[in-house]
Amino acid sequence: MTVKLIDPWGSGLLEDYEKIVKDFGLEVFNPKGFPEPNRIMRRGVVFAGRDLARLADAIHGKKKFYALSGIMPTAERIHFGNKMVIENLAYFQKHGAKTIVAIADLEAAAVRGVSLAEARKRALEFHIPAYIALGLNPKKTLFYFQSENRDVTRVAFEAAQKITFNEFRATYGSTEPSRIMSALTQIGDILFPQLEERMPGIIPVGIDQEPHIRLTRDFVSRSRSTFKFTQISSLYHKYTPSLDGELKMSKSKPESCIELPEDPKSACAKIKRALTGGRDTLEEHRRLGAVIEKDMVFELLKQHLIEDDKELQEIYDEYKGGKMTSGELKEIACEKTTLFMKSLQEGIEDARKLVKAKELNFLD
Amino acid sequence: MTVKLIDPWGSGLLEDYEKIVKDFGLEVFNPKGFPEPNRIMRRGVVFAGRDLARLADAIHGKKKFYALSGIMPTAERIHFGNKMVIENLAYFQKHGAKTIVAIADLEAAAVRGVSLAEARKRALEFHIPAYIALGLNPKKTLFYFQSENRDVTRVAFEAAQKITFNEFRATYGSTEPSRIMSALTQIGDILFPQLEERMPGIIPVGIDQEPHIRLTRDFVSRSRSTFKFTQISSLYHKYTPSLDGELKMSKSKPESCIELPEDPKSACAKIKRALTGGRDTLEEHRRLGAVIEKDMVFELLKQHLIEDDKELQEIYDEYKGGKMTSGELKEIACEKTTLFMKSLQEGIEDARKLVKAKELNFLD
Repeated sequence: MTVKLIDPWGSGLLEDYEKIVKDFGLEVFNPKGFPEPNRIMRRGVVFAGRDLARLADAIHGKKKFYALSGIMPTAERIHFGNKMVIENLAYFQKHGAKTIVAIADLEAAAVRGVSLAEARKRALEFHIPAYIALGLNPKKTLFYFQSENRDVTRVAFEAAQKITFNEFRATYGSTEPSRIMSALTQIGDILFPQLEERMPGIIPVGIDQEPHIRLTRDFVSRSRSTFKFTQISSLYHKYTPSLDGELKMSKSKPESCIELPEDPKSACAKIKRALTGGRDTLEEHRRLGAVIEKDMVFELLKQHLIEDDKELQEIYDEYKGGKMTSGELKEIACEKTTLFMKSLQEGIEDARKLVKAKELNFLD
Repeated sequence: MTVKLIDPWGSGLLEDYEKIVKDFGLEVFNPKGFPEPNRIMRRGVVFAGRDLARLADAIHGKKKFYALSGIMPTAERIHFGNKMVIENLAYFQKHGAKTIVAIADLEAAAVRGVSLAEARKRALEFHIPAYIALGLNPKKTLFYFQSENRDVTRVAFEAAQKITFNEFRATYGSTEPSRIMSALTQIGDILFPQLEERMPGIIPVGIDQEPHIRLTRDFVSRSRSTFKFTQISSLYHKYTPSLDGELKMSKSKPESCIELPEDPKSACAKIKRALTGGRDTLEEHRRLGAVIEKDMVFELLKQHLIEDDKELQEIYDEYKGGKMTSGELKEIACEKTTLFMKSLQEGIEDARKLVKAKELNFLD
């Protein structure tokens, strides 16, 4: 493909993602191929994928397809990466996808030492409500617990026969049994919806999940004569950068990481200390304008807090032109964050009621 | 332990088993420790085990314990090794064990390319009826299909976290994912009965299954702080030797292998060609007697075809004393085989009716 990676409102991290696309041999995501692209698709935050034409065809041709992602029901909060996955899932759901969310209780139990019962409790009380609050249609989403889905195990077993030790080593560096078991189970998660009926599927993930996608696609190719799975498509979004300018926001640096949900005051305090593209003096800022590619607050507004492109463009122009200061930008971000966190908290509480009233769809 | 390996009616293969006991650090099996030992226990065919005192205690103290084995529902027939496992299971069943038989449909599908549906069909039509015909109490045995047992997957996942790559390599030589997945699933099979309640368990197996036992026991030791599984016991029987005198009867040499069931004529023809301990001339035979340790027909009678110790002793004496010729011994073996095969065939047909009438117990 000749489409170039575009980040219409700038980001200093663009080069990293161009390298990723090249290294992994990904397709550059072109929002024009999809109807009504969502905010992160329009803005270059969704930046790459695999087999996207197959998926676009399914949407345009109103054919059956599925969109699938997973929840790791361990952490007490989720993060912006989860939010982007959910927004992409919601996008495909809106455009006709059978939408499936795996609750990785087996992995939670095994890798994080959280019992299956505890994982179930956390998923029902927090993660599932949060996924609904962030945009999934509770009536149209199918949830399942890994430990209860026998088809996942069946596919995992089949995959174990087709993927060699050397491939695991090449893919993950590690060949520990726990890693192998997790990877095979994820292949089971990704493909089991096709046991009933072959159809295209889209897996929206952060780019760090690419190895699972590659391995799954290899297995699909290799088992063509027996399973005839339709090859899966994938969609990658960039990381939300750390507020100090690093590639990825991470809990390991709590002062530069906003969690979901987080108390708005605490989130605003972090925003106040974030790396910006403001100049050293006000005079210089007015004269030269902000260096937007280095501004983590603008990146947060762009990725998450401002839905309307026109509104974002206006802020971009004023900030880049030096009319708006970093302090003013932070004020805006703080206000938007406060509104967002309140709305998220309310959404979670509402969705929790749905869970309690058993108004969700769980696969057996 | 100072107990020595004893084979009261001789076998030239004794040395091989003494080496196995030493190499693997097994306990020598002493039939005196168990009430009413069965035929193969009394005759040194069951030769070793692990943690046998725990199991003997459970039997003598009438405590809860379980006995478990598996069926690979692929082959069209079973073999003498399966028969010995079943006889040992039946022994423990008679002495109070909760008796569980895993049907390894996942492994059949994955390793042998037999679909789950086909594996289920074969198990119901042949393997389960054969297991009942060979001595399991149909009312008291719990069967389950691996693909339907979620607890097995749960334990397998936990085990994956505790067993390292290096351990797999040391145990199996191979570290292919399929091997790892199978081994982890077998650990799940062996331990899942304890999820509900911790209790001793005995796994009667052929000695070639020792690596699975060792790995399972290592996992139990290592997860003592979390799972508190009761350590499992194991029981090993010797192979039925090939009719040509090799250590193990194997389908790869069909002329020296009797299958279960097999047409009595075909089985008798194989017995006629078997390696015996008869002397070169009749005169010599009468004078020196048979070399019983080299006689595969006597071994077959001892291991499988003669239940009564006195009857076996008489044949032993006559044959060793030169009164009975190899031809006469083969006649006896052929008659016994014919009766056994007829009774097995009838038993399978009767048990098939039980399966059809759904009078067996399947775990969900």
